[in-house]
Amino acid sequence: TEKKEVKKSATRLQMTFSSRAEIAKNEAAKELFKIMEAKKSNLCLAADVTKSDEILNLAESLGPFICVLKTHVDIVEDFSENFVNSLKALAKKHNFMIMEDRKFADIGNTVALQFSKGIYKISEWCDLVTAHSLPGDGLLKGLKEVIKNKEKIGIFMLTEMSSDGHLMSQDYSNKTMQMIANYSDIVAGIVAQSSQFTENQPELIQLTPGCKLDETGDNLGQKYNTPEFLVKEKGADIAVVGRGIIESKNPVEVAKTYRERLWNSYEERIKY
Amino acid sequence: TEKKEVKKSATRLQMTFSSRAEIAKNEAAKELFKIMEAKKSNLCLAADVTKSDEILNLAESLGPFICVLKTHVDIVEDFSENFVNSLKALAKKHNFMIMEDRKFADIGNTVALQFSKGIYKISEWCDLVTAHSLPGDGLLKGLKEVIKNKEKIGIFMLTEMSSDGHLMSQDYSNKTMQMIANYSDIVAGIVAQSSQFTENQPELIQLTPGCKLDETGDNLGQKYNTPEFLVKEKGADIAVVGRGIIESKNPVEVAKTYRERLWNSYEERIKY
Repeated sequence: TEKKEVKKSATRLQMTFSSRAEIAKNEAAKELFKIMEAKKSNLCLAADVTKSDEILNLAESLGPFICVLKTHVDIVEDFSENFVNSLKALAKKHNFMIMEDRKFADIGNTVALQFSKGIYKISEWCDLVTAHSLPGDGLLKGLKEVIKNKEKIGIFMLTEMSSDGHLMSQDYSNKTMQMIANYSDIVAGIVAQSSQFTENQPELIQLTPGCKLDETGDNLGQKYNTPEFLVKEKGADIAVVGRGIIESKNPVEVAKTYRERLWNSYEERIKY
Repeated sequence: TEKKEVKKSATRLQMTFSSRAEIAKNEAAKELFKIMEAKKSNLCLAADVTKSDEILNLAESLGPFICVLKTHVDIVEDFSENFVNSLKALAKKHNFMIMEDRKFADIGNTVALQFSKGIYKISEWCDLVTAHSLPGDGLLKGLKEVIKNKEKIGIFMLTEMSSDGHLMSQDYSNKTMQMIANYSDIVAGIVAQSSQFTENQPELIQLTPGCKLDETGDNLGQKYNTPEFLVKEKGADIAVVGRGIIESKNPVEVAKTYRERLWNSYEERIKY
């Protein structure tokens, strides 16, 4: 009953990550909130590089400043079980979680196989994984059949994208939120561009991609926002930064800057 | 001008695959129409098994009866370059095309990497590949940057799914068709459940999953229809069959039955 009072007395944006850890329904979300608070970091690194050594080097040098390291394992040219084991060891050493940004988008039977089988066996090493609601909730049912045998895995469902001309309408996003409601034990949060969907669901974590120190874009339709705007105006709990750090001259210093600006934005946000 | 007359004088469903080969704008689509006509087959096998030998055995035994073999390469546990080379050799021997059902669903920069890099290097061996329009047309721009250096690859864009509760609204499907219009050189067709989207675009191939000899479903939200219904009522040019063949006691005989019922349905369809 105390938990319910907390939930009703404040909106998500005003609550601390610690208090939200208490009401999280997914075990991975609970742990992630604690990591964020312990490390004072709401920075997710998108390690979008194609060599496993590069990813491991990024994990070693930037690990202390991030709460999540996000992979696209299917762009890694020399993927191996050793790579996964090394990455897991670094995640433990530096206390961050590993998110495979798989964006599952198929029927339940297929995503269950994609999640647990193949060369990658994603469910054996990821803490968090992304998925699209597009195929309907059979997808979540399929993923759940895999997760039920695992320890702590959390799914992030996409409700909005940061790319130009994406087709996630308001209705699409609303239906995604309805779908999530029936799978709160396995869903850790959402990937979104605005705070509207989880205002009254502080148990869910909002991950927001498209963050750079200055507002820019790429030539393939991707748009970017500043850390302050993402956290305070768009409701990001965690911001994803990739090329802004990786392609900089001094990734460690730039990561520190992101982490500081993102965390300060969060601290200012909860004051309101 | 003669081609335009053909296009205007008949709807897609009344036209022969041969005549549509002439007006296809994508090179892979053109070739696929010719294969279908040559082999009298509009059957696509979904080779959703997890061992490479099983896929190769299916390709060898069922290859003569299919026009496309569809893979989910990321569920294959012992994927190797040898496997891909063997599959390509069988595709050449039995004259079918290889479709990787990747369902790309990310921003342009990422899908370009997923398509060309990693362990799988999909763009180096697939003839056809599937993608979602969900992220916006940056996705097609990203895929096009990879395809421009390749010979003949065709993309199949999903406009509708066969799973319960999918979120592809009429508006979603319409916007997908608008997106395709600007990329007609790289788009071979659509994955759809009804003929409405391409009635006046016979240059596009409609691929329709969810086919079984009897109407049934699975326990993860997937629905099935008969060959006759799919081709004559739902407008399928090619029907996808997976478990209906693979899990049967005599896959060769069952594949022959599917092929015959699908092809007869097509021949009846063009009579109208």
